[in-house]
Amino acid sequence: MTVQDAHTSAQEPGGDGKRPIGWHKDHLTGPRPDLRVPVRRVHLTNGRDVTLYDTSGPYTDPTVDTDVRRGLPPLREDWITGRGDTEEYDGRPARPEDDGHKDAAPGGGLRNLDAVFPGRPRRPRRSRDGSPVTQLSYARRGEITAEMEYVALRENVSPETVREEIAAGRAVLPANVNHPEIEPMIIGKRFLVKVNANIGNSAVTSSIEEEVEKMTWATRWGADTVMDLSTGRNIHTTREWVLRNSPVPIGTVPLYQALEKVGGRAEELTWEIYKDTVIEQAEQGVDYMTVHAGVLLRYVPLTARRKTGIVSRGGSIMAAWCLAHHKESFLYENFEELCEILAAYDVTFSLGDGLRPGSVADANDEAQFAELRTLGELNTVAKAHGVQTMIEGPGHVPMHKIKENIDLQQEICEEAPFYTLGPLTTDVAPGYDHITSGIGAAMIAWWGTAMLCYVTPKEHLGLPDRDDVKTGVITYKIAAHAADLAKGHPGAQEWDDALSDARFEFRWEDQFNLALDPDTARAFHDETLPAEPAKTAHFCSMCGPKFCSMKISQDIRRRHGGEMDEIEAGMAEKSREFAAAGNRVYLPVAD
Amino acid sequence: MTVQDAHTSAQEPGGDGKRPIGWHKDHLTGPRPDLRVPVRRVHLTNGRDVTLYDTSGPYTDPTVDTDVRRGLPPLREDWITGRGDTEEYDGRPARPEDDGHKDAAPGGGLRNLDAVFPGRPRRPRRSRDGSPVTQLSYARRGEITAEMEYVALRENVSPETVREEIAAGRAVLPANVNHPEIEPMIIGKRFLVKVNANIGNSAVTSSIEEEVEKMTWATRWGADTVMDLSTGRNIHTTREWVLRNSPVPIGTVPLYQALEKVGGRAEELTWEIYKDTVIEQAEQGVDYMTVHAGVLLRYVPLTARRKTGIVSRGGSIMAAWCLAHHKESFLYENFEELCEILAAYDVTFSLGDGLRPGSVADANDEAQFAELRTLGELNTVAKAHGVQTMIEGPGHVPMHKIKENIDLQQEICEEAPFYTLGPLTTDVAPGYDHITSGIGAAMIAWWGTAMLCYVTPKEHLGLPDRDDVKTGVITYKIAAHAADLAKGHPGAQEWDDALSDARFEFRWEDQFNLALDPDTARAFHDETLPAEPAKTAHFCSMCGPKFCSMKISQDIRRRHGGEMDEIEAGMAEKSREFAAAGNRVYLPVAD
Repeated sequence: MTVQDAHTSAQEPGGDGKRPIGWHKDHLTGPRPDLRVPVRRVHLTNGRDVTLYDTSGPYTDPTVDTDVRRGLPPLREDWITGRGDTEEYDGRPARPEDDGHKDAAPGGGLRNLDAVFPGRPRRPRRSRDGSPVTQLSYARRGEITAEMEYVALRENVSPETVREEIAAGRAVLPANVNHPEIEPMIIGKRFLVKVNANIGNSAVTSSIEEEVEKMTWATRWGADTVMDLSTGRNIHTTREWVLRNSPVPIGTVPLYQALEKVGGRAEELTWEIYKDTVIEQAEQGVDYMTVHAGVLLRYVPLTARRKTGIVSRGGSIMAAWCLAHHKESFLYENFEELCEILAAYDVTFSLGDGLRPGSVADANDEAQFAELRTLGELNTVAKAHGVQTMIEGPGHVPMHKIKENIDLQQEICEEAPFYTLGPLTTDVAPGYDHITSGIGAAMIAWWGTAMLCYVTPKEHLGLPDRDDVKTGVITYKIAAHAADLAKGHPGAQEWDDALSDARFEFRWEDQFNLALDPDTARAFHDETLPAEPAKTAHFCSMCGPKFCSMKISQDIRRRHGGEMDEIEAGMAEKSREFAAAGNRVYLPVAD
Repeated sequence: MTVQDAHTSAQEPGGDGKRPIGWHKDHLTGPRPDLRVPVRRVHLTNGRDVTLYDTSGPYTDPTVDTDVRRGLPPLREDWITGRGDTEEYDGRPARPEDDGHKDAAPGGGLRNLDAVFPGRPRRPRRSRDGSPVTQLSYARRGEITAEMEYVALRENVSPETVREEIAAGRAVLPANVNHPEIEPMIIGKRFLVKVNANIGNSAVTSSIEEEVEKMTWATRWGADTVMDLSTGRNIHTTREWVLRNSPVPIGTVPLYQALEKVGGRAEELTWEIYKDTVIEQAEQGVDYMTVHAGVLLRYVPLTARRKTGIVSRGGSIMAAWCLAHHKESFLYENFEELCEILAAYDVTFSLGDGLRPGSVADANDEAQFAELRTLGELNTVAKAHGVQTMIEGPGHVPMHKIKENIDLQQEICEEAPFYTLGPLTTDVAPGYDHITSGIGAAMIAWWGTAMLCYVTPKEHLGLPDRDDVKTGVITYKIAAHAADLAKGHPGAQEWDDALSDARFEFRWEDQFNLALDPDTARAFHDETLPAEPAKTAHFCSMCGPKFCSMKISQDIRRRHGGEMDEIEAGMAEKSREFAAAGNRVYLPVAD
């Protein structure tokens, strides 16, 4: 397996000590020497630099020798051990059924790689005395952790702001003590809007190798977190490879693996099997877990007359379990014990919306909002146990019903970060649901959603491949950045301004290098005007030389600069006259 | 040239008299026998039909034998002549410079086809006595034209509603008396949101053949109007081919051709050359014309400190002319004469926003809104002359500044239809500007924009090819339909509901046939599960058989239907108890 292609766009600094061209990986340093925050430094041809947020991890750093068989360096290890509140222990022994096998060791029967992850040996770590070792608990007692300082530098805010937002439960910093490899990031409405990319094999297709590759590929294009939603065989081993190589927090839905352990029969699920799976995954280092504890027995009938019933996998599994046993959900009944487990590893809750609408017809219905109210109660319980918590949201919602979702969630869940899947604003475009949902995602993020779960073009149709992952991530980075702009996030517009300046001044190479996807921008330009001189031409094939408005606009400034000043002065005079005359609008055609 | 591929998705009715499968072209008929409105009739496997709006013209009608050398049948001819207010006349003679040649007849030196359009001979037609022959003038005096009845049937509203909206200037029905080939359509906020696709060669690339093909291709995917923005050679002849073969209204920017006639030197433009070009195009049958008459001399300096100056081609040309002569715009000065010309052919004004922002930094600035106020004045003048009028809008606008654009336009322009280009919600994603702008387009359409001008992935980078045209149209159909849903347009949600029903019931073929782009939906599904049985499978490769939430959801309904009714009854009881106890929220985890 290679992640070499993650490098292809980077143009390395010249060996001759000259200023590098294009862009290169760099790091911000703060007051602490052990704290280096990765950034993408774009070097413009006009001598300026533009610094962009970077999620791609050490893979794009030519000074780091990465090897997926070894895993990434444990960046946070000293910070975690330094706090002295955790300890290593003999973890839960691996079992064949962890990977969906009946009679072989985990990793047996794998189609690729060397089965079990060959990296550095590790023992799991957890709270020394059972008390929470979460960023929330530290923030509450006034501690600014290294992770908080890291994200403060990354977001260009004060460490105290980070601490306050986490302490108030308005932001989460997902960082399992068993996932020291991550570069810390924060999810909350006061910060940059984040994007999650889902990966994961299914029973039908794909391999471990592909999943690790999809993870590095997704972060290369800007995914802030990755959810491993694998459901087929080798779930445990796939996750191990993904975790050890991931520079971003990893989320999962433990219910999927639990269901595999009972052969796919929902009614055979038990709290014990589920709990064991959560511990298994917490020991591996999963940073946040989707838990569909809000699907209560009494809500299931509310979905009976829906157009598309229950469309969350986890939601439908729990609904089936509740009805099969005619009992309340074991996730709900055992929620406090679950909190204690998550608190001991600093796993963040992502309270799943198992009853989210699967069609615009079902949006904002009784089932959906009944569950949301329960998620609000569970949010309170989780916080009482010191567990960081975010809340998942829909789904399929027409534009005029989107705002109610975020407003209600913020009210009911005491401003806990909202993490939505789109929402898709129409059902009629399978094959383009990255776009139907990108529209809703941008809007709901503007109104306060903290993280957006991407949707790929394959949604509803099949498993996304590498190209789909990229398209999904880019579409959602657009939605997230559009929201950052609309929220007036400090510094967000600098990026747009730098690109627009480059565009107006025909600095084509700068325009490409500043683009969210430089490769595509360059390729599209070159399709019609491939020659090198076209890279400095004052036009493109869209309008041609005579009709380039920017060229004409520049000519006007050059030729008529002084005259424009005169006209403007005259206009100011006219404007005063107009105001003096009572601002009456006159018909312009006088003759 | 062929447009055969426009047929590929249609599955024709069976010759054995059985019910057709897939979908086929059909027509709605109203009270008038000469009035047949095209629709796409989707035949579902459950025996139902779904009827969708269709813009693809006779090309998708297997009963019509189309030939691009002959042109489309003149559908409206009898309606136009029947009104008796127009007459044929010897039009303006064609000149070599119409096609950008100095010394050959128009159509000479063409790279393809047979140069001059070989179809039926025709003489231009105009108002018999100079009084307006516009749908606006008919509507005002209480007449419901055949065109109005046609769009009423098409939009499923009463003819009187159509007449009222046109009479009030809130809607336009672009229909030049010299373009009898079109299937009438309406643009106004009370109707379905429309989408325009731009085509047109540039000096750098592309041919007549390609442009005609792009036009049929764009309408095949849902373009409601097409603008021919050609700027290179053969403008006149390209336009003739496009018009004679177009089932949708054609828009142009006459200034482009006028500029070609003066060798690209803006300062050599004159009112006479411009006027002659407008008449030339009106005689050909152009249905609406973008006129940048709001770019006044005194506004140009307002753009001097902008990040991206003037980005409208027409706007920059007029600004250059104004400054070169230090005179007010000849379009503004001669606007009333222009109105008289347009009224005599029923050409609709599209008052261009020559000073629209080209970057988020320039959005909603003084230059932009100063011009908008002038467009409001011109709108009043145009209406006084009986000319149908719509107003063009931006551009690049971050989400939080979008609503001000539509609100201000509606106020200043007395609810004249707004016709916006996107807007793009961020500048950082060249190569994906169909998406950055699709977000803004959906929002501004929800808030009242009547027509959206598409943006393709090539925006800012190059001339769109066939694939880009399709991607642009589909993206904008999504934005338009999402807006129709959000506006609660009657019947809009039926389409979503039909598709969601098909999805929930695993009627894969129905899901494909109902999709905005059936080909892509089917191809994406088949990529991972190509076999025929997969078309009836109760899962797809996205989740696999065990994790299909819809399958589980259906199982629940089948197995636990009665039980759900009981729970619901019990819940209603609980709910009454809860209300009786004062609606207190209790913490759910009691033990």
